[in-house]
Amino acid sequence: MKNTKLQAFTPLFYLVWSDDLLTQKEFKTIQEFINNLSWLSQEEKQQLLSKVDISNPPSRNELAQWKLDIEKSIQDKTAVKSIFDIAVALSDKDLDISLVESDFTKLENDLGILGEEALQNFKTKADSFTANSQTTSNFDIQKITEFLDGKEAPIIKKVKSIISRPEFAYETSTDINVFRQTVYNWCKILADENLGNMAYPKEYGGGGNVEDYFAIMETLSYHDLSLVIKFGVQFGLWGMSVQSLGTEKHYAKYLKDIGSLKLPGCFAMTETHHGSNVKGLETTATYNHSDQTFTIHTPNQNAQKEYIGNAAVHGQMATVFAKLVIDNHDYGVNAFIVPLRDTNGNTIKGVTIGDCGHKMGLNGVDNGTISFDNVVIPKENMLDRFASVNDKGEFESPIPSDNRRFFTMLGTLVGGRIGIPRSALAAAKSGLTIAIRYSDQRRQFGPEGGSEVPILNYRMHQRRLLPHLAKTYAVHFALQYLTNRFLNRTEAEMQEIEALAAGMKSYSTWSTRDILQECREACGGKGYLSENRIDALKNDTEIYTTFEGDNTVLMQLVAKNRLSEFRKSFGEMGSLGIINYVYENAKTAITEKNPIATRKTDDEHLLDSEFHLQAFVHREKTILASAARRIKKLVDGGLEAYDAFNVVQHQMIDVAQAYLERIVLEQFQEALKAVKDENSKQILTKLYQLYALSQIEKNKGWYLEDGYMEAVKTKAVRKMVNQLCWDIRPDAVALVNAFDIPESCLAAPIAANF
Amino acid sequence: MKNTKLQAFTPLFYLVWSDDLLTQKEFKTIQEFINNLSWLSQEEKQQLLSKVDISNPPSRNELAQWKLDIEKSIQDKTAVKSIFDIAVALSDKDLDISLVESDFTKLENDLGILGEEALQNFKTKADSFTANSQTTSNFDIQKITEFLDGKEAPIIKKVKSIISRPEFAYETSTDINVFRQTVYNWCKILADENLGNMAYPKEYGGGGNVEDYFAIMETLSYHDLSLVIKFGVQFGLWGMSVQSLGTEKHYAKYLKDIGSLKLPGCFAMTETHHGSNVKGLETTATYNHSDQTFTIHTPNQNAQKEYIGNAAVHGQMATVFAKLVIDNHDYGVNAFIVPLRDTNGNTIKGVTIGDCGHKMGLNGVDNGTISFDNVVIPKENMLDRFASVNDKGEFESPIPSDNRRFFTMLGTLVGGRIGIPRSALAAAKSGLTIAIRYSDQRRQFGPEGGSEVPILNYRMHQRRLLPHLAKTYAVHFALQYLTNRFLNRTEAEMQEIEALAAGMKSYSTWSTRDILQECREACGGKGYLSENRIDALKNDTEIYTTFEGDNTVLMQLVAKNRLSEFRKSFGEMGSLGIINYVYENAKTAITEKNPIATRKTDDEHLLDSEFHLQAFVHREKTILASAARRIKKLVDGGLEAYDAFNVVQHQMIDVAQAYLERIVLEQFQEALKAVKDENSKQILTKLYQLYALSQIEKNKGWYLEDGYMEAVKTKAVRKMVNQLCWDIRPDAVALVNAFDIPESCLAAPIAANF
Repeated sequence: MKNTKLQAFTPLFYLVWSDDLLTQKEFKTIQEFINNLSWLSQEEKQQLLSKVDISNPPSRNELAQWKLDIEKSIQDKTAVKSIFDIAVALSDKDLDISLVESDFTKLENDLGILGEEALQNFKTKADSFTANSQTTSNFDIQKITEFLDGKEAPIIKKVKSIISRPEFAYETSTDINVFRQTVYNWCKILADENLGNMAYPKEYGGGGNVEDYFAIMETLSYHDLSLVIKFGVQFGLWGMSVQSLGTEKHYAKYLKDIGSLKLPGCFAMTETHHGSNVKGLETTATYNHSDQTFTIHTPNQNAQKEYIGNAAVHGQMATVFAKLVIDNHDYGVNAFIVPLRDTNGNTIKGVTIGDCGHKMGLNGVDNGTISFDNVVIPKENMLDRFASVNDKGEFESPIPSDNRRFFTMLGTLVGGRIGIPRSALAAAKSGLTIAIRYSDQRRQFGPEGGSEVPILNYRMHQRRLLPHLAKTYAVHFALQYLTNRFLNRTEAEMQEIEALAAGMKSYSTWSTRDILQECREACGGKGYLSENRIDALKNDTEIYTTFEGDNTVLMQLVAKNRLSEFRKSFGEMGSLGIINYVYENAKTAITEKNPIATRKTDDEHLLDSEFHLQAFVHREKTILASAARRIKKLVDGGLEAYDAFNVVQHQMIDVAQAYLERIVLEQFQEALKAVKDENSKQILTKLYQLYALSQIEKNKGWYLEDGYMEAVKTKAVRKMVNQLCWDIRPDAVALVNAFDIPESCLAAPIAANF
Repeated sequence: MKNTKLQAFTPLFYLVWSDDLLTQKEFKTIQEFINNLSWLSQEEKQQLLSKVDISNPPSRNELAQWKLDIEKSIQDKTAVKSIFDIAVALSDKDLDISLVESDFTKLENDLGILGEEALQNFKTKADSFTANSQTTSNFDIQKITEFLDGKEAPIIKKVKSIISRPEFAYETSTDINVFRQTVYNWCKILADENLGNMAYPKEYGGGGNVEDYFAIMETLSYHDLSLVIKFGVQFGLWGMSVQSLGTEKHYAKYLKDIGSLKLPGCFAMTETHHGSNVKGLETTATYNHSDQTFTIHTPNQNAQKEYIGNAAVHGQMATVFAKLVIDNHDYGVNAFIVPLRDTNGNTIKGVTIGDCGHKMGLNGVDNGTISFDNVVIPKENMLDRFASVNDKGEFESPIPSDNRRFFTMLGTLVGGRIGIPRSALAAAKSGLTIAIRYSDQRRQFGPEGGSEVPILNYRMHQRRLLPHLAKTYAVHFALQYLTNRFLNRTEAEMQEIEALAAGMKSYSTWSTRDILQECREACGGKGYLSENRIDALKNDTEIYTTFEGDNTVLMQLVAKNRLSEFRKSFGEMGSLGIINYVYENAKTAITEKNPIATRKTDDEHLLDSEFHLQAFVHREKTILASAARRIKKLVDGGLEAYDAFNVVQHQMIDVAQAYLERIVLEQFQEALKAVKDENSKQILTKLYQLYALSQIEKNKGWYLEDGYMEAVKTKAVRKMVNQLCWDIRPDAVALVNAFDIPESCLAAPIAANF
């Protein structure tokens, strides 16, 4: 095509034949366009039309030549911004084709060709900011590790060193019998290292250190999770039930053997028909005064104990929860030590044990069912800290109400609701370490002519992983807080701490569920291969949202606790208090809900921790007050309280959620105050901001409904979340490396630390 | 306490000692309260204080007596609404204690005791509407089954009957070798039943029925999902690649043996380093004109084929995607048939096969890696429908652009993106059937004094499952639509249908992921046991969001397709069109965004399908136009298109999501029009409304930001979603039974149909 006028069409032709998006219809559009151009001769039109004849495509060589021509013509011309600009560049300098610009522009529009985008086809040198983002480390990783570990560093180090030994190589057999035995052997090693008895009193051979015990649970969770659950069943549930519900005679008799794993045992509470509603247990313990014994009995198939860890294979004894019956009177649920197997592993007469069989995960733990057919145990086997039968055969308890006694008993077991969320946290850390390291190495797609780009450079991928990373740091600090509250608890705080533990258990395990799901998908096919361990992490922790209390049920309890606190504080304030409360709310409305605040979108404000806290607190208070009002209204309207609570169940979850989010936010803020190293502080502050704003973004529907924010502000929050993700991305690998998980535990080939 | 005044305190004392919520602090509150009552003598005060002495609790008998007294006094007194009312009831008729009412009320407030709620302790007869909800069937289940199956009923029935045979009993071995062989044997049975070759042309021994083939894929998915994937790899991916990319000579040579499973084969596209960016494949097929052969070669470890189904054990041949090289010139990715094993199962020289090993799920499928070390194949093995090498050794293709040819080739394989979402749909149906039947049977908690209540009666539980049930019906109809569009496609519609398939693949598989997650949690511990099959359903479908195209990447493609359509239609309209578009938008603003519409909350309006469609369309159009504007602005501002798309990636997902939601909504509406049976229509309409409103609720943040709805309306939507859940609950079991999944396939003990 030596005709200059016709050369102007070259880029168009090239796009027509190379672009995979144009359809037959668009060929017609181009043909009509050519036919309508008045400045072309009939002959010229024919020549052009022959190039867009769908039945007569150009040869590959012709196509290649076109591309070459175009590339040559636009080399070093940065001003080229549209197809027409190329046409100009291709034309003789003498010819002024600017008159036809509008025709070309219209055609480009009709074909939906975006000038700059189409030009990508011809630009060979990629100068892309997406491609240029990469991993750097702006802080000293070890300093953050030290900050996270705090004073638990020595025990964490010890546990890591043990689980990195060769004998802790992961079990690869899919045979659950083999797996169960391996996990048992691992537990034995841990017991020999005096990790199992860490929380028991020193006078019974223990370490007397509950704080270390929780750190052990968390650190073990970097390894196989069947191990930590088996460990938790033996030393936590079984051992701690003896310690919490029994008295000196039980400690002396059992604790040493439990701590050494000489006496494997179970915590037999849940029954087939009673899990969440544990007050409804049907197993009976009938007192026989004549021979000072109890008869443990399973009255029907559905009252069998189910899902009991250590039951199917290893357990020799169990703490069995059963309704105490004396003289046909039911004294509510109490706990009893019942033998299951003799030292040879044979089941005791009257005890029937079933195997829960293969599970979704945790197949290294031998869960089973237990039924009792009138099994007789001596009177001393009653765990009698809170209730006992006296010499006259009468029931005795310092807590007269069955209900209250039962919840006091349960309250002593709250430790499980600290160990589990901390274990879930560790699993999330493992998943994120694998997924973020992989995303930093895995390359896919890239700018035209440039090399492929790490997938962590893609905004969507950052969105999928980095807010989860921020949340994981947030949960870390919140669980440290929970642990400290528990360790320093007073009697008066117990209800609050129990609710906090129940809530944080839900918050952390749901968070881990979401994180591992995202990690699996973010790793694509590699995430599906068992060798990369997201399989095990995800399936093992799947039940964390159910055991130690179903999350949804726990959240209802948390919300009820919040409501009851609310009513009390409201009540104590009296009528003056009510006026104050209304006034305070009005003040919020004035200072926080004025048009300037609800629309404020400058960076400084959005990143301000004072703003975050106010927003979280406002949400928490408002939802709580609204739920309280709604329940009152329903009850006043004649509804049974049971029904009223059912109507607002959905809202109750929000009450608990908003409370927990505020706690987690506060604890992240508190943690930041304690960071001394400036570089650490800087990156942790960004993570904190990402946590705060991504929570606000998640709840934007609520904030808009409430009027606390306007659209302009929630949109600015979204933008800031994107920006924070982009800013944190270069440090992401360093931030997961700061978790300092042993490489032998991570084990995933795709997470190899390059 | 014979003193009537003192008797009034009985309920208070009972609550103090029986309630598990009161703390030491509250004991003090009560003591102070008593001390401050001027109408009591000092002696009376002492007597009362002795009852709230924390170191001297009442005996159990005393407590029981109090309760008895209270219960007796309020029997049949429906007017009793507060603790004070009980006090009145307990007092002598002669004594007027109404003077002290305000004191009591204040105390109740201070203690946070909600009168009605506290009264639950004393009411023995439960009259609860929560407890009274139960399963009924308001429609003929079979009629809905017939409606869902439509004209595919015969083939669905045939497949169900085959997979219900004893030889299709689930494999319980955890040994993957055993499992793989079982699945292979099942496939052989299906091939013998002429199900595998259903889509192949009749002239090559096939059934010539693509529609039936898809119905087979979906129905097989009620059984083990390894089966359907193995089946899909063999007959879909391997067979259809030959049919779609090859020519007559290949059909004649291979199709019959593929259809009978005499020739097991693979679809070898994905490489370790190239999955989503399949254009970047590195395997080469070098043409040698001297002996008319191709040499297939894997240039480096990361160019090995990976995750290839049928490769590890059974595959004898593979369709291998490789870059064609002639005379050192790269002609882009093409497809070749390459032998892997001889009929004895020995690997061909030059072929190295690895085993992907244990996976999260689908362990009945033998995924493997394949490497080629200069494997020579005859020229005829090139699948030459879209490209070939002519007798002179030159490359020839009716499609000159490598890019365009490649996407045309991929386009012929779109069937996989119909089979997978339909398989995912079936898995969701299985999960919901198990979870909803169980939730209808499982009882936990209940009104005080009443029996325990099915957990499906709890609002939160309904919230967790019923919107998913509605969505599953919605996806069913949308996938029927997709299938029909595909079966009746014209060339001009192909791009739209490809985008629709990519989008529905993502929509359906993500939906299934969420549904099975909720089902697992809703079934608690039972959901964790492998015997109840949520394990397998969940882990097998986990990879559905990744294979046949990573969902996130596919959603970007869908969004790009929408943008390109938008630009075209916008372009075609010309400047008049732009004015019209702005005017149309303004009309929407006037008619739909006026204060009356944005605040309209009456039931009729909220349930109106016209309102739903407008809201969905408005969202779709607005997000699309906004994304288009934003990209243009970024590019105009100097950003590379590649970078601009990265900046808006998050928004692109919304573009695709809003488009798909509108399609799904429309198809549910269309389906309803075709329902003849009135009872069916009624319940399906409720499900439709639940789908529509729960989507709006999910997107309420967007609607509020946009100003399309105000808070009063989004709140009304939430309320209506709750109400619809409650209304649908009695029919829920019937609605899952209408899926008509063979009981032998469901298999879960907890889903036994009572």
